[in-house]
Amino acid sequence: MQPARGPLASEPRTVLLLRFYASLMEMKLPGQEGFEASSAPRNIPSGELDSNPDPGTGPSPDGPSDTDSKELGVPKDPLLFIQLNELLGWPQALEWRETGRWVLFEEKLEVAAGRWSAPHVPTLALPSLQKLRSLLAEGLVLLDCPAQSLLELVEQVTRVESLSPELRGQLQALLLQRPQHYNQTTGTRPCWGSTHPRKASNSEEAPLREQCQNPLRQKLPPGAEAGTVLAGELGFLAQPLGAFVRLRDPVVLGSLTEVSLPSRFFCLLLGPRMLGKGYHEMGRAAAVLLSDPQFQWSVRRASNLHDLLAALDAFLEEATVLPPGRWDPTARIPPPKCLPSQHKRLPSQQREIRGPAVPRLTSAEDRHRHGPHAPSSELQRTGRKVPWYPSDFFDALHLQCFSAVLYIYLATVTNAITFGGLLGDATDGAQGVLESFLGTAVAGAAFCLMAGQPLTILSSTGPVLVFERLLFSFSRDYSLDYLPFRLWVGIWVATFCLVLVATEASVLVRYFTRFTEEGFCALISLIFIYDAVGKMLNLTHTYPIQKPGSSAYGCLCQYPGPGGNESQWIRTRPKDRDDIDLGLINASLLPPPECTRQGGHPRGPGCHTVPDIAFFSLLLFLTSFFFAMALKCVKTSRFFPSVVRKGLSDFSSVLAILLGCGLDAFLGLATPKLMVPREFKPTLSGRGWLVSPFGANPWWWSVAAALPALLLSILIFMDQQITAVILNRVEYRLQKGAGFHLDLFCVAVLMLLTSALGLPWYVSATVISLAHMDSLRRESRTCAPGERPNFLGIREQRLTGLVVFILTGASIFLAPVLKFIPMPVLYGIFLYMGVAALSSIQFTKRVKLLLMPAKHQPDLLLLRHVPLTRVHLFTAIQLACLGLLWIIKSTPAAIVFPLMLLGLVGVRKALERVFSPQELFWLDELMPEEERSIPEKGLEPEHSFSGSDSEDSELMYQPKAPEINISVN
Amino acid sequence: MQPARGPLASEPRTVLLLRFYASLMEMKLPGQEGFEASSAPRNIPSGELDSNPDPGTGPSPDGPSDTDSKELGVPKDPLLFIQLNELLGWPQALEWRETGRWVLFEEKLEVAAGRWSAPHVPTLALPSLQKLRSLLAEGLVLLDCPAQSLLELVEQVTRVESLSPELRGQLQALLLQRPQHYNQTTGTRPCWGSTHPRKASNSEEAPLREQCQNPLRQKLPPGAEAGTVLAGELGFLAQPLGAFVRLRDPVVLGSLTEVSLPSRFFCLLLGPRMLGKGYHEMGRAAAVLLSDPQFQWSVRRASNLHDLLAALDAFLEEATVLPPGRWDPTARIPPPKCLPSQHKRLPSQQREIRGPAVPRLTSAEDRHRHGPHAPSSELQRTGRKVPWYPSDFFDALHLQCFSAVLYIYLATVTNAITFGGLLGDATDGAQGVLESFLGTAVAGAAFCLMAGQPLTILSSTGPVLVFERLLFSFSRDYSLDYLPFRLWVGIWVATFCLVLVATEASVLVRYFTRFTEEGFCALISLIFIYDAVGKMLNLTHTYPIQKPGSSAYGCLCQYPGPGGNESQWIRTRPKDRDDIDLGLINASLLPPPECTRQGGHPRGPGCHTVPDIAFFSLLLFLTSFFFAMALKCVKTSRFFPSVVRKGLSDFSSVLAILLGCGLDAFLGLATPKLMVPREFKPTLSGRGWLVSPFGANPWWWSVAAALPALLLSILIFMDQQITAVILNRVEYRLQKGAGFHLDLFCVAVLMLLTSALGLPWYVSATVISLAHMDSLRRESRTCAPGERPNFLGIREQRLTGLVVFILTGASIFLAPVLKFIPMPVLYGIFLYMGVAALSSIQFTKRVKLLLMPAKHQPDLLLLRHVPLTRVHLFTAIQLACLGLLWIIKSTPAAIVFPLMLLGLVGVRKALERVFSPQELFWLDELMPEEERSIPEKGLEPEHSFSGSDSEDSELMYQPKAPEINISVN
Repeated sequence: MQPARGPLASEPRTVLLLRFYASLMEMKLPGQEGFEASSAPRNIPSGELDSNPDPGTGPSPDGPSDTDSKELGVPKDPLLFIQLNELLGWPQALEWRETGRWVLFEEKLEVAAGRWSAPHVPTLALPSLQKLRSLLAEGLVLLDCPAQSLLELVEQVTRVESLSPELRGQLQALLLQRPQHYNQTTGTRPCWGSTHPRKASNSEEAPLREQCQNPLRQKLPPGAEAGTVLAGELGFLAQPLGAFVRLRDPVVLGSLTEVSLPSRFFCLLLGPRMLGKGYHEMGRAAAVLLSDPQFQWSVRRASNLHDLLAALDAFLEEATVLPPGRWDPTARIPPPKCLPSQHKRLPSQQREIRGPAVPRLTSAEDRHRHGPHAPSSELQRTGRKVPWYPSDFFDALHLQCFSAVLYIYLATVTNAITFGGLLGDATDGAQGVLESFLGTAVAGAAFCLMAGQPLTILSSTGPVLVFERLLFSFSRDYSLDYLPFRLWVGIWVATFCLVLVATEASVLVRYFTRFTEEGFCALISLIFIYDAVGKMLNLTHTYPIQKPGSSAYGCLCQYPGPGGNESQWIRTRPKDRDDIDLGLINASLLPPPECTRQGGHPRGPGCHTVPDIAFFSLLLFLTSFFFAMALKCVKTSRFFPSVVRKGLSDFSSVLAILLGCGLDAFLGLATPKLMVPREFKPTLSGRGWLVSPFGANPWWWSVAAALPALLLSILIFMDQQITAVILNRVEYRLQKGAGFHLDLFCVAVLMLLTSALGLPWYVSATVISLAHMDSLRRESRTCAPGERPNFLGIREQRLTGLVVFILTGASIFLAPVLKFIPMPVLYGIFLYMGVAALSSIQFTKRVKLLLMPAKHQPDLLLLRHVPLTRVHLFTAIQLACLGLLWIIKSTPAAIVFPLMLLGLVGVRKALERVFSPQELFWLDELMPEEERSIPEKGLEPEHSFSGSDSEDSELMYQPKAPEINISVN
Repeated sequence: MQPARGPLASEPRTVLLLRFYASLMEMKLPGQEGFEASSAPRNIPSGELDSNPDPGTGPSPDGPSDTDSKELGVPKDPLLFIQLNELLGWPQALEWRETGRWVLFEEKLEVAAGRWSAPHVPTLALPSLQKLRSLLAEGLVLLDCPAQSLLELVEQVTRVESLSPELRGQLQALLLQRPQHYNQTTGTRPCWGSTHPRKASNSEEAPLREQCQNPLRQKLPPGAEAGTVLAGELGFLAQPLGAFVRLRDPVVLGSLTEVSLPSRFFCLLLGPRMLGKGYHEMGRAAAVLLSDPQFQWSVRRASNLHDLLAALDAFLEEATVLPPGRWDPTARIPPPKCLPSQHKRLPSQQREIRGPAVPRLTSAEDRHRHGPHAPSSELQRTGRKVPWYPSDFFDALHLQCFSAVLYIYLATVTNAITFGGLLGDATDGAQGVLESFLGTAVAGAAFCLMAGQPLTILSSTGPVLVFERLLFSFSRDYSLDYLPFRLWVGIWVATFCLVLVATEASVLVRYFTRFTEEGFCALISLIFIYDAVGKMLNLTHTYPIQKPGSSAYGCLCQYPGPGGNESQWIRTRPKDRDDIDLGLINASLLPPPECTRQGGHPRGPGCHTVPDIAFFSLLLFLTSFFFAMALKCVKTSRFFPSVVRKGLSDFSSVLAILLGCGLDAFLGLATPKLMVPREFKPTLSGRGWLVSPFGANPWWWSVAAALPALLLSILIFMDQQITAVILNRVEYRLQKGAGFHLDLFCVAVLMLLTSALGLPWYVSATVISLAHMDSLRRESRTCAPGERPNFLGIREQRLTGLVVFILTGASIFLAPVLKFIPMPVLYGIFLYMGVAALSSIQFTKRVKLLLMPAKHQPDLLLLRHVPLTRVHLFTAIQLACLGLLWIIKSTPAAIVFPLMLLGLVGVRKALERVFSPQELFWLDELMPEEERSIPEKGLEPEHSFSGSDSEDSELMYQPKAPEINISVN
C-alpha cells in the first residue's frame, strides 16, 4: 500500500490532534492566531455568508431568531433523512454507492446480501470524529447556500482555491455522476448498473421513478428533508477536501438521494488515499452527527463555522464512551425501547420555543408519576359528556372501527359463552348461556349509550361470577328460591351503589393500592384455576375410568320372558356374586338404548359407563388451554407478518374453542356439551322473563338480602372503579373526559334491570375494555426505521361498542350452534383466563424471584432500590394474606370474602409500620396520606423520584408500568 | 448550592479543556512551556522517580525492559481488581464507601437495595475522561513507590506543596479512615457502622476477617492485585488534588480494599465542591481505565507522566462512541458473550513477549477457519496411541469423572432401553431390550479399551436403526431367516469397512459438507418423528376408541349347559342380528379372565376392547414428549441454581420416562409395556447366543447379503466418520490425538461380533459422545464477575467410558424393573429425540426464515452476506432433495436410501454451478477443490474470511458455530 499523502495523514498525527483539540476551544491561545486563521474561515467565499438574501432565515447567535419565532406555530423542525454515498472503485471504476442511511438509527447496506441491515444504534470511533472536526474546520462551510439544483450546488462547492481548473472539472463531473442506490422494490440488485459519469441534465434533475416509489418515502412524514454525506478516497487530490453546505431552501437534488426529498444539508469529505477505512468512518461520523436531534437543531440555526464546531463539541460532551477492551465496536446494538428524552438536552431557549409539550417525548416520567392511582383529576371532571355526544357517533366513521368491532364482538361472544356456560354449571341451570347473551347485549348496549366512558365494555367478570356461585350455594343451604332472592340482592346493591354515587365515594378508590389490587386479582385467578381443574376432575367421576381389575365389565340386554330355573345356577356360586351371576336368561348384546327400544332392559355395570370420555375430555381441556396460551405468545414471535400475528394472538380464545370443537366433532365422542335451550325462553324451565319478587321465600329474606348485597357492593365498587381508573389513565390521552360517578350510576341501574330479568350481573371488564381501546389507537403512520409508531390518541366514540352489543344480541340466534361446544374446552379457556391474569401481575414476578438465585434475577428497578430480603418479606406477607383469603374461601363463611378483600386495605395500612415509604413506593404505591408525607420527610437522593437524571432515564428502560389485569374477565 | 470554587470549576471551562487537549499532544506548542512546566511534574518529589532502588522493575520507554524479559516465563500480568471508594457525607459525616468495583466488567453498589448490580459493560462520559486527564496531568504521579503500608503511602501521597501542615494532617486522618464495604456474606448492611476517623494502627494493617472471607476472593486467580480509586468532594481543599501511585511491591493496604489483595495501584481524586456527579464520574473513569487490559499493560511499564497520559490517549483512540440522542448513558449493557480480542490491541513488542498464544483469546477465528471439516491433520496422525495408554487410566482420578460416569451411564441406559424397545418393535422380537443392554455393554467396553478416541461412546444410532428396520422387512418379504441373513450382512460390512481402513478412505469424509450432513440428519429425524407418531396412532387400532354408535358394547360370560330353546327367540329377530341375539343362555357378568377360569367363555364385542387405553397412551406420549422438551429448556431459564438446572436438563429423558412410568403406575391401566424376557436368554425364543451362519436360508443369500451390506457400509462410514470429525475438532483442544482409522477398524470388528451374537449394531454416537466430552471439560475455577469460565481442555482417559459400560452390563439385572415402562412413553422420547435433532440443524433455521418477514429475521451472518432469495433457493433445493429422499423411503426400494444420501454429495457438487463459492461458504462449507480454488480467485473484500477486522469481530457475536447433531441418537 502506498504511504498516505494527504495532509490529514502526512502531517504528524500530534499536530493534527492538536489542531482538533485547540480548535475545540472558544478562545485563542497565545501563539495560535496564525493557526486559527489558517483553519477555520480559510476557504469560505466571504460573500456566501453575508449576502444572505433572506434575513428571516438567518440565525442569530443568541436567543430565538425570527425563524424561531415564525416556527412558534410549527414548533418542530422537519425530520431529516441522512444518506451516506461512498466513492468506491478508485482508480479504475469510480462510482458513488449509497452504503448507509439514518433517520433515527443506522441502517447499513449489506452489499453482498443486497439488503439493508436491521436498524441499530450507530457506534463511532472517537478518532473519526476528531478527523471530521479538523476537516470541517479547515474546509468550506456554506450556510444558507442559495443553490437551486445539484449543478449549482456542485459549482459552489468546488469553488475552492486549492483546486486547479482541470481538477475542478473532473471533480464536478464526478459529483454529478448518478449514485447507485440499493432499491428495495426492484429486488436484489442496485437499480442502476451504469457507472459512466454523466452530467446532470434538466431531465435528470427531476426525481426518478425509483426515488418516488421508494417504500421509505411512506415512512417519513410530509415535510421531511434530506441530508447527504459524500465521502471517499480520490487519488488525484493532493489534500483533503471538506465541505459542509446548508441550503437556504431545500431542493430536490436530482437522483442524489435514495428518496425523492428536498435536500437541506450536503457534506463532502474527499481526500487522497488513507490507511484503513478513514473516509468511510468519517462519513459515518458526519451522518451520525446530522442525525442527532440536538446537532440538527444547532446546525439549522448556526451562523458560522464557530457555531457548527460548537455543535459538534456539544455532541462530544454528551456522548457515551464504551471502553475498547470490553466492547466490540462492530457489534450492532438494537434500538432501545424508549429513546432518551431529548427535552433535557435542549438548550434553554430551544425549550422555551418548543414549549412544554415536546411531541416525541415519551411519557415514561408521566407514567411514573401517575400510576394507576392518581385519579383525582379525572374524578373531579365528571358529568360534562353532553357536548361530546354527537361527535361520539361521527368519530366512528373510520375503517379501523370495523376491525375493532369484529375483534371486540368475537371477544365478547367468547366471554358470553364461557361465562354463560360456567354460570349454568354454578347455578344448576338457574341461569345459562341464553341469559348471558341476552344480558350482555342489553346491558352492554345500554351502557354504551348512557355511560361517561363509552369505551368501557361491560361483561361478566371473575369476581362477580365467583360471588354468584357462592350466593347460589348459600341460597341452596337455606332452601331459598334463588332468583327472587337474587332480585332482592340486586335491588339492595343498586341502592348501595346509588348512595356511593351520591356521596362521591369514588375518591376512595385511591386507597386501593397495587397491594389490594393484586390480592384481589390473585385470589380470583386462583379460584378460576382451582375451579377449572376441579370441574375437569369432576368429569372423571361422571365418566369413570375403567381399570383392569374393576368390575365395570359386562353388559347385556335382558328380555323379560320365560327363563330357566335360575336357582340351579345360583346354588353353585357364592352369595356375593348374586348380581353378577344371572343364571338362565334370555339375552342379546344390543347397546343399551336400542335394547330399551326393543323392550328389553340393559343389565350389567358396563351398561352405565361411557368409556374414553374422561381421557378425551382431559385431552380437550389441555389442548384448548395450551393452544390458547401458545397463540397468545405468537404476538411476540418472529414468524408471519405482524397482521397475522396480531390476529392469531387477539383471537386466541376463539381459535382455541374452534380447535376443541373440531377435535370433538372429528372423533364424535359423547363428551359433555354446553347446555343450550332449544327455544328463546329462560334456561330455568317454568319461569317467565320477569322474576317474581318473592317466589317461595319468606318476606323477611328480602331485607336479609341486604347483607350479601353489601358484600357484593364492595366487589362491584372495587371491580368497576379500579377498571375505570385504569381506562382513564393520562397516557391514553383521552380527550372527552371520564365519568366515574355516571358509570357507577349506570352499573347500578343495569343491576336492577338484570336482577329483575334474571340475567347475569355486569360491571366494566378491564381486559376487554383495554383491548377495545387498543384496537382504536390512532398512531402515526410515518415512523423512522427502528422507531416505534407514535401514539396519537384513541378514537373515542360510542358506536363500536353499540354495534358490538347489537351483534351480540343478534347472536342469540346462533344458539343452536353452541350446543356443539364441549364443556372441557370451556374449562380449558377458563384455566387460560386464570393463568393469564395471574401471570400479568407484579406479585407473580416477585414470587418467581423467590426461586431465582440473586445472580440470575432480572435487573428490575425495584431490586435496584429495595433490599432483596425486604422484597421477599413483602412477597411473603402477600402470600400469607392470600393463604388467609383462601382459607376463608374454603369455609362455609366463603361469602364474606369481599369484606376480607377490603381488609387488604387495612393490612396495607399496617405495612407502613414495617416498610419505609421509599420501599413501599417501589414495592407498591403510596396511599394518599403517604404521598402528602413524603415531600416533608424527603427521600434519600437515591430514592428521589422527582427528577434525578439517572433515575428518570433508568425508567425508560424498565418503566414501572402499571399492571393492566386487575380482575379476570 | 454554593458556586464551585476549585480550579477545575473556577477557571473558564475552555482553558481547562484546552489544557486537557494540549497536554494530549506529545510536542509542545509555542507559548506553552510554562503551562507544561506547571502541570505535569509539578508536585512529584524528584527523588521518587530517580531513586528507584530496583533497576529491574524500572520500565524502559522503548521495547521490552528487564521486567518484561523476566516475565517471559510467566507472560501474563496479574489480574487487577479495581475498587472505587467514594467520600460521602461532606461536611457533617465524612465516610469512605465502596460504590463500585471492576475486574472485567463494572459492578455498581445499589446502595438502597444493598446489593451489587449484575456485571455490565461500563459506560463513561467523555468529559469525565477529559477532567481526569487534566487532574492527573496536574497532579502527583508516583511510579514504583516503595511504600510498605497504608500509612507510608498516605504520607507520601499527601507530601504535596500546596497543602498546609494542618490540612495535610486532616487529609491523612481522612485517608486512613476505614472505608465501608458492602459485605456479601454478612447480609444486607455494610459490615462496619462506625464512621469515626481512625488512624491505622499495626493491628489494622492486617487484613480483616471479612476481607479474607469475601466470596469474590475465590473468583480471582492467585497472584491477583488490587487497585483502589479514592474519589470525592472535600470542601476544605482549595484546589483539586489528584494522585496516581504505582507501588513498587504490591502490599496489602489494611482494610482499604474489599478483598484482601496486595495493592498495586492507588489513585486519589479529591477536590472542592463541583456541580453534578463530577468526582464520582471521574473516579469511575479512572477505575474503568485501570480495568482496561491495554491501559494496565502500559501503566505497569510506564516510566513517567508522559507514558501514563499516552496510555490514556491510546484508550481514547480506541474507545467506541455512542451518540447521545440514540443511547441512554445510564442503560446497563450486559457483558457480551465474547470479549473482543485483546491480541489485536497489543502494541507489537507486547505481542512478541506474550508469544502467539494469548490465553484469553477466544477461538472464534479458529472455529471459523476450522469448521467441522478440516480433519486432514487429524486424519494423518493415527496410530500413535500406545504412549498415552497408561495415562488414559491415571488421568481419570478426579471427582469430576464420577459425575460424568453417572450422567453418561444414565444416558446410555436410557438409549439402550429406548432403542432396544423400538428394535423389538421393528424386528418382531428378533432382538430386544436384553440384546440392546448386552450389546451396548460389550461393544462399548471393547471400544473404550481399543479405540483411538476413547471418549467416543458407541451406541445404537438412528440411521442404523432405520436401516435395520428396512432390512428386517426386506428379509420378511423374501421369507428369510432374519438373524443368519443379518450375520452375513455384518460379515460383509466388516469386510468393506476393513477395505476402507486399508485404503485410508477416511479422507473422503471431507466431501460430506454441511449440506450432506443436514440432509442425512433431517431425513433420519423425520423418520423418527413419523415413526413415533405412527406407532402411537397404531395403538389406537389395537385399543380402539368406543364411539357412541359403535357396536363394541356388550359382554357377558356364557356357560355351557342346558339352555332353553334358542330358536324361539331367533325367529322374531332379523337374520343379521344373529351374533347379537343370543337367545336363552346361561350367563354371568364376570370379567373375561375370570369367566374363563370359571369354565365359561366370554361373549360379545365388548369383551375384547380395553377402554381408555388409547387416550391414556396418547396422554402418556404427549406428557413424556413435552416434559422432556420443557426440561431441556430449563438449562437456560433463570430459575434455580445452575447445578439444579443442569441436572434437570441433562437428565431430561430419564426424568420424562420416570414421570411417564409414575403416571402409568398411579392409574394402573393396562397400557402396552416394554417386553422384557424373564430370564437371561435371547429375546427370540429357541435360539442360542450364537447365530447359526445359514439357518433356513439358501446358501447364496450369504453372497447376496453383500448388496445391502454395501448400503449399510455407506451409512456406517458416514455416521462414524462425521461423528469422529466433530469429536476431534480443534476447539476441544484434545492432547492425545485422534484415531480415525483405528476407530473404524474397531467398529468393523465389533460389527462381526454383534452380528454373530445377534446383538444390535453400534457406531459412534455424536450427541452422547459430545455430552461425554462436555462432562469432562476442565475449566478455570477463577473467573471475574460477568466473565465466562475459560475452557482449559478435556480429561482424556478411557476409564469413564469403561465404567459406564461395565455398569450398563450390570444393569441387565435391572431387567425385571423395565417391564413397568409403558411403550407410549418410549415413543414420546423417540419423538423428542427426532425433534431435538431436527431443531439443532441450520437447515431448520433457514426453513424458519421462509416464514419470517425480512424485517423480523435474526441478524444471522449468512443473511449479511448472501441475498435472501439465494438463501431461500438453497433451502428450497434442500427441501426438494429431502422430499425425493422421503419418496424413495416410502417405496419398496426404501433400503437403497443410503445410496441416495451419498447422492447428496453429487447434488452438492452440482450446486457449484448455481451458487458462487462465496455464497456456498456462508450457506454450507467448501469442498476440498473449492477451498483450493478460492485463494486463486480471491474473495470480494466483504467476503474475505482471512482477516478483515470487522468480519472477525462480527464472528464473535454470532460465531458460525459448527452444528453438533448430525444424526439422531
